[in-house]
Amino acid sequence: MRISELSERTGVSPASIKYYTREGLLPAGERTGYNSTAYDESHVARLRLIRALIDTGGLTVAAAGEVIAAIDSPDIDLDHAFGIAQRSVPRDVTPPSSTAIEQVRAVMRERGWATVADNPGIPLAASVLDDLATTRTDLSAVLPRYAEAIDIIAEADLDAVAASGDRDQMTETVVVGIVLGDVLLAGLRRIAQESHTHRRYRGGVVPGQAHEPGQANETRELT
Amino acid sequence: MRISELSERTGVSPASIKYYTREGLLPAGERTGYNSTAYDESHVARLRLIRALIDTGGLTVAAAGEVIAAIDSPDIDLDHAFGIAQRSVPRDVTPPSSTAIEQVRAVMRERGWATVADNPGIPLAASVLDDLATTRTDLSAVLPRYAEAIDIIAEADLDAVAASGDRDQMTETVVVGIVLGDVLLAGLRRIAQESHTHRRYRGGVVPGQAHEPGQANETRELT
Repeated sequence: MRISELSERTGVSPASIKYYTREGLLPAGERTGYNSTAYDESHVARLRLIRALIDTGGLTVAAAGEVIAAIDSPDIDLDHAFGIAQRSVPRDVTPPSSTAIEQVRAVMRERGWATVADNPGIPLAASVLDDLATTRTDLSAVLPRYAEAIDIIAEADLDAVAASGDRDQMTETVVVGIVLGDVLLAGLRRIAQESHTHRRYRGGVVPGQAHEPGQANETRELT
Repeated sequence: MRISELSERTGVSPASIKYYTREGLLPAGERTGYNSTAYDESHVARLRLIRALIDTGGLTVAAAGEVIAAIDSPDIDLDHAFGIAQRSVPRDVTPPSSTAIEQVRAVMRERGWATVADNPGIPLAASVLDDLATTRTDLSAVLPRYAEAIDIIAEADLDAVAASGDRDQMTETVVVGIVLGDVLLAGLRRIAQESHTHRRYRGGVVPGQAHEPGQANETRELT
């Protein structure tokens, strides 16, 4: 297909398609003549992956490029792919305090989590604890429960990787699952937060949902 | 204190301080003379909150402004603060397919989650499922386990809000906890993923950790 069709099918502009090709994220199409290039289904799939990582996952083009290079690498081991995906968080982290790092390490000891010293999750979690400390928001009481829940999630993550079949697909599941999984979990958390709020403060009544006339006024205010 | 000291204590440049004041995120300092303004500890705290929301939470300046307006509003109810924080996700979502929305709703029914129809988590989670579908990554088998874990997290979230004391602090815990909690959970997930990987594939041996000489070669490769 021509670049115009590729653009139409993926919603990615021709200028962006050329940019991703120049940056090495998208393999070049087949040159079929002066000023004309042919693309195939593999380009459609790749462009969708690129946009998922950048638009949904919030990665920079550079970070998405590293993740895609890991997927493309013929002899990458799963460990390495894992490390690249883990590091591809969509934001820079300010160096955390030693207090916050110790707080994270205490949670790790409690759950029996052993990692290499430079696991990127340690400074990421610790920097959030530093931020929370400056804003008078105390989540330290809930930290062990977050960790308990995360154990369930990480176990499920590894099962998804193990179930994904051949080695190529495993690598892709690792990187896509790590990056997009964060966003999926953020979405589910918002749904569950609202549901729990209604359950706790409103006797389960959800505003705007089907109910008997007059019942709406019975919902208790949260203030 | 002068703007130079405020800048030094918070790491925010004077230009950014002026920008946040113009945009309404930071209250103006007290005018003490021609070209000189005095700031106090409330400005230090506020600037740290702004940077936490933007740098760690990944919010845009506009989204951080809405969240801060909610905190500052004297008569905002908790419900409303909750809604604003829930909507302040750091990325735009492409409209999800009806298939993906139905997949999310099935999870909600399974867990007994009731929400208003426009809960922002529904399109957020559904758009990730669409992205995953285009990249051949199947997380549908793990979705119920993610939801089970998220139930624990949401319950802990509400306990943190309830424990935070007066109404002002509750509002701040809601908005800061929602925005930064996502990042904290992403950090913990990376730690747990690595720990589970070692437990499952390497008999618990973590490379680079203290162990007997020669033992390093016994770790199994993941490939």
